[in-house]
Amino acid sequence: MYKTAIKQLADAFGDKLSLSAALRKTHGHDESSHTGKSPDAVLFAHTTDDVALAVKICAANTMPIIAYGAGTSLEGQIIPTRGGLTVDMSHMNRVLQVNCADMDVRVEAGITREDLNRHLRDQGLFFPIDPGANCTLGGMVATRASGTNAVRYGTMREQLLSLKVVTANGDIIETGTRARKSAAGYDLTHLFAGSEGTLGITTEISLRVHGIPEMLSAGVCRFPSLKAAVDTAITTIQMGLPISRIELMDELSIQAVNAHSKTTYPEAPTLFLEFSGSSLSVADQIRSFEEIALDMGGSDIEFANTQEAINALWHARHNILYATKALAPTKSTITTDICVPISELATCMMETRKDIEQSGLLATILGHVGDGNFHTIILVDEENPAEANKATALNVAMVERALKLGGTCTGEHGIGLGKREFLQQEKASAIPLMQTIKNALDPKGIMNPGKIF
Amino acid sequence: MYKTAIKQLADAFGDKLSLSAALRKTHGHDESSHTGKSPDAVLFAHTTDDVALAVKICAANTMPIIAYGAGTSLEGQIIPTRGGLTVDMSHMNRVLQVNCADMDVRVEAGITREDLNRHLRDQGLFFPIDPGANCTLGGMVATRASGTNAVRYGTMREQLLSLKVVTANGDIIETGTRARKSAAGYDLTHLFAGSEGTLGITTEISLRVHGIPEMLSAGVCRFPSLKAAVDTAITTIQMGLPISRIELMDELSIQAVNAHSKTTYPEAPTLFLEFSGSSLSVADQIRSFEEIALDMGGSDIEFANTQEAINALWHARHNILYATKALAPTKSTITTDICVPISELATCMMETRKDIEQSGLLATILGHVGDGNFHTIILVDEENPAEANKATALNVAMVERALKLGGTCTGEHGIGLGKREFLQQEKASAIPLMQTIKNALDPKGIMNPGKIF
Repeated sequence: MYKTAIKQLADAFGDKLSLSAALRKTHGHDESSHTGKSPDAVLFAHTTDDVALAVKICAANTMPIIAYGAGTSLEGQIIPTRGGLTVDMSHMNRVLQVNCADMDVRVEAGITREDLNRHLRDQGLFFPIDPGANCTLGGMVATRASGTNAVRYGTMREQLLSLKVVTANGDIIETGTRARKSAAGYDLTHLFAGSEGTLGITTEISLRVHGIPEMLSAGVCRFPSLKAAVDTAITTIQMGLPISRIELMDELSIQAVNAHSKTTYPEAPTLFLEFSGSSLSVADQIRSFEEIALDMGGSDIEFANTQEAINALWHARHNILYATKALAPTKSTITTDICVPISELATCMMETRKDIEQSGLLATILGHVGDGNFHTIILVDEENPAEANKATALNVAMVERALKLGGTCTGEHGIGLGKREFLQQEKASAIPLMQTIKNALDPKGIMNPGKIF
Repeated sequence: MYKTAIKQLADAFGDKLSLSAALRKTHGHDESSHTGKSPDAVLFAHTTDDVALAVKICAANTMPIIAYGAGTSLEGQIIPTRGGLTVDMSHMNRVLQVNCADMDVRVEAGITREDLNRHLRDQGLFFPIDPGANCTLGGMVATRASGTNAVRYGTMREQLLSLKVVTANGDIIETGTRARKSAAGYDLTHLFAGSEGTLGITTEISLRVHGIPEMLSAGVCRFPSLKAAVDTAITTIQMGLPISRIELMDELSIQAVNAHSKTTYPEAPTLFLEFSGSSLSVADQIRSFEEIALDMGGSDIEFANTQEAINALWHARHNILYATKALAPTKSTITTDICVPISELATCMMETRKDIEQSGLLATILGHVGDGNFHTIILVDEENPAEANKATALNVAMVERALKLGGTCTGEHGIGLGKREFLQQEKASAIPLMQTIKNALDPKGIMNPGKIF
């Protein structure tokens, strides 16, 4: 398919374009269990102009175009379900500007979050948004990603100052400035953030970064029950403790992590915690937290005292998807992702736990509980229709419960392929307007078609 | 004009519709010096359904429709330049829900910020966004407003969870949920925020509120020069002090405030400050701030020690527009509003000061310096073309400087009528896309026409 377009792309881009079957295949799936499909060609973009020219050629030939960062999306966002051109952004990975005095940076969209942090570290700065995977910043913009630091620093949304975007007709636009706040016209920055490549392709990002805190202390706190752990997290947030991370893992998550990361955490519901600030403030926070936790039956915090130990702790947490997969390597995983008002979190999580038990499925429960956001990672044998159906039913039940409790069908993974029906449910009244925007901004429907709607 | 439409509106709304010339006139201007114009009719909406029906009648008759909150906009946003229907939202002023445990509320768009805070106070909560005027929440959404607390709590943008909006065809949509974060589809909440009524009319708002801090301390600190004051503010921010307010006023601002609010602040460049948190943290912050300030030639902080004194201090600050107007009651005011990266703030402000001196105009300088945002309020005799031209030139020079320094033409007042050309300059590449969105969402061009573009 798309012979003319591919010929034009090959003429324009030479070696940057690849038609290799193996390469196309690796660009045809993400980390979800959604069925992959190879794109017709892969372009390794080096500049915004490359992306703009590619979009123009695709537009002229009504060929789908999909941006690809690190391939770590969790709802099939980067799968070229209708074929077309995949634009691999990994060569666009430069840090273009670091403004220390303003704590903002300008990067190309293909840089990964770990590379950005390596670049910033010497300057006393860091970028806090940390999904589990080492994804690209462009991908994080596309899905409005977050992670373990959102309770303190907000999500990707709160970090964005401006985007350079290639629109569906190949124009290059800049959506903002370096000013911290602005009331100048429509907020296109936040329209593109979370649009999953369906309105345009982000090529450069200006974003806020933060000073590495004077002091940082991390640790784990175990609880006799999942309920006690989640109640502790809720109270911590409701009391306004400026905690920087508060992550929950159930027994099975800890078991998976121990096996995968060679750690020896006791297998009990556990909160992973981080406190930061001045040494005075950290001590104050820890004291307040321990009061709450002990009251709920929690143990003392076991501290990770060196930077190495702290890194190991968060590394273990970040690898939970891979750790859960390793519990049953032959199975697929379905990662659920709901977010509710924090007052509803205990109800929501305990009912989910009951659902899992009743289903007989193997599934870890873990969450950014400070935000009211949690996941189950369900292990499922896709050759076994009964098991697959149970997993689907579990996901559906979780989403319906979240919506009923005033929450959302996705806290941070996005809609992609997997949550399109849930979005229809959650945003029933707003879908026509979203669709109007999509049609107006991408009249030919070439930008990552089939996603979100 | 619009006889058929007005007949239909009168039939539908009876007493809620007014054609009184006096009433139309008061709805025809805001607090800016932009020339007013009366709408053809004023509707006092009581429900979202009222607004939806009004939009449908206006759409059927291609009649402009403009939402009106408290009439405190500063760039002519609510002026019906092409006539039409003004929808007065002031009767839609109920608090619909307070969720203490989640620290969020649901309000009708016509409530004022002071009324909301009166409602919340007994529950230990407050809503921090505080433009000078006692504006409505709907107006604050429309202009993406901020105020003195943005340095700590963010702007209106950061408080929003969801909006109920009447779109240009009279549909009623809900843009979000009560979840703190979500990756579910296009971020319509933030598209409508700042769209100044040009895409739809917000009728209900779900937003975050905050716990009243355990301790709060406010005071003023005087400096030998404007430069010393602004440098102190910049250093305070760059050192990461979690200050909650840091507001600058120049000598003339203080003189104006003293005359208007019967205060006796020494007439020198002054920072108005607020520290909040635990008593320990507040003491820590004050100590750090004083070190910086004394080093720059500042005096000790003079504290406002009672809640009454603190309120008086911020009341004086908030009334600066009225205070400046009182310096020359026969003149009009032009309020400028630029925002730059904080590293550029001193340059930007000192050059602005020089411009003012060279122009011979009377203008106060004041700013939310923690955000890099500041205003001059220029007094101008509009009967005197030379003076009017000088004032315009000053505004233009400020905006051009801000853009050159990586900033924006409006930090918080919006575009309205007054900054349309500046927006073209600032967002040249993005304007066509904004216009595409406007045309797609409001194909008849009835929603507050003539604003932003």
